[in-house]
Amino acid sequence: MKIGILGAGNVGAALARVWIAKGHEVMFGVPDLKGERVQKALADLGGKGRASNNAEAAKFGEVVAIAVPWPAAKQAIANCGNLAGKILVDCLNPLAPDLKGLTVGGNTSAAEEVALWAASALVVKAFNTIGAGNFGHAEFSGQRADGFYCGDNSAAKSTVKRLIEDAGLNPVDVGPLRNARLLEPLAMLWIDLAVNQCWGPNHAFKLLRR
Amino acid sequence: MKIGILGAGNVGAALARVWIAKGHEVMFGVPDLKGERVQKALADLGGKGRASNNAEAAKFGEVVAIAVPWPAAKQAIANCGNLAGKILVDCLNPLAPDLKGLTVGGNTSAAEEVALWAASALVVKAFNTIGAGNFGHAEFSGQRADGFYCGDNSAAKSTVKRLIEDAGLNPVDVGPLRNARLLEPLAMLWIDLAVNQCWGPNHAFKLLRR
Repeated sequence: MKIGILGAGNVGAALARVWIAKGHEVMFGVPDLKGERVQKALADLGGKGRASNNAEAAKFGEVVAIAVPWPAAKQAIANCGNLAGKILVDCLNPLAPDLKGLTVGGNTSAAEEVALWAASALVVKAFNTIGAGNFGHAEFSGQRADGFYCGDNSAAKSTVKRLIEDAGLNPVDVGPLRNARLLEPLAMLWIDLAVNQCWGPNHAFKLLRR
Repeated sequence: MKIGILGAGNVGAALARVWIAKGHEVMFGVPDLKGERVQKALADLGGKGRASNNAEAAKFGEVVAIAVPWPAAKQAIANCGNLAGKILVDCLNPLAPDLKGLTVGGNTSAAEEVALWAASALVVKAFNTIGAGNFGHAEFSGQRADGFYCGDNSAAKSTVKRLIEDAGLNPVDVGPLRNARLLEPLAMLWIDLAVNQCWGPNHAFKLLRR
């Protein structure tokens, strides 16, 4: 599958790593091709990744994943141009600068904002509730961490489900896109434990069932 | 331990059942001793539980758990009278009437509201992120479900940790009371999956670690 990834930070670079390992083709979309992060991400991919601006990355991808800092998200989507019919994977968390809370929540969510900004795309929320360092090796004492996702288009969700599996996570469909209102606080809990409670990055949520 | 439980609904009755089984003494606090729910809860306890009004239940308990419907919580606390130095276990979720969202969130939480209403008590949030039917049998294919809790007083948290273990859950301390802002949406996710996504009650969250 051809995948555009907006952003080459921790999340974008980790997604590129695991997806290329599974045979997908990846193009980063970044504002500056000479930027340190995208150059490092490309180097780490050993020549198997590409980079361009957001419009080219969006044109390249059957799937487009957005993994930029929250304050840059609206402009990044605007820069993509036409996203009609594309699957847009929203990996964002609308973090406050001090990492102590979310700047969007309650009766909306980052995902629902993204869906307003990219009205012609099929938005699926995913990859936001676990640290990106766990992508590709998400086993915890024999248990596989969950990759929660939600969205309103079932065909788009099926595709994203496979991409979650390709990232080594156990996909768990938690319903419509509005449930991003619940996945984003779950991500904030992961981050709070990692950063503010000093746990570090080696934890993950799993939904047990019987 | 002597425990007052405000409310004799699903959560209150289930807590009474598991705590009495572990040797604790329980007194429900209810507005109407002849009410159907408290009479059923007392019958299910086979004579091992008691009931009175909120003030008596609060006086009785070294620990007081609040498990009333959210709209009744402020008055229930007011009815308790003096809670100075008592451990107040907040089991509440501020659910919208249609069970499709929370009525409190963002920059506050039900737990923080409770702490304002019961300013002299030591508030610990617990027992809100899993259906009460799982209390006492929280094994899922050999994995024990987590009981997340948070609060600002470490001695109170130590006591509540033991009560979480007595309810058959694996206690997980997620930090200060303000993190109830994250546990309440987690509870909403549990409820949404159970009710709106039609999963039923047989699921639970676990935090994997390595």
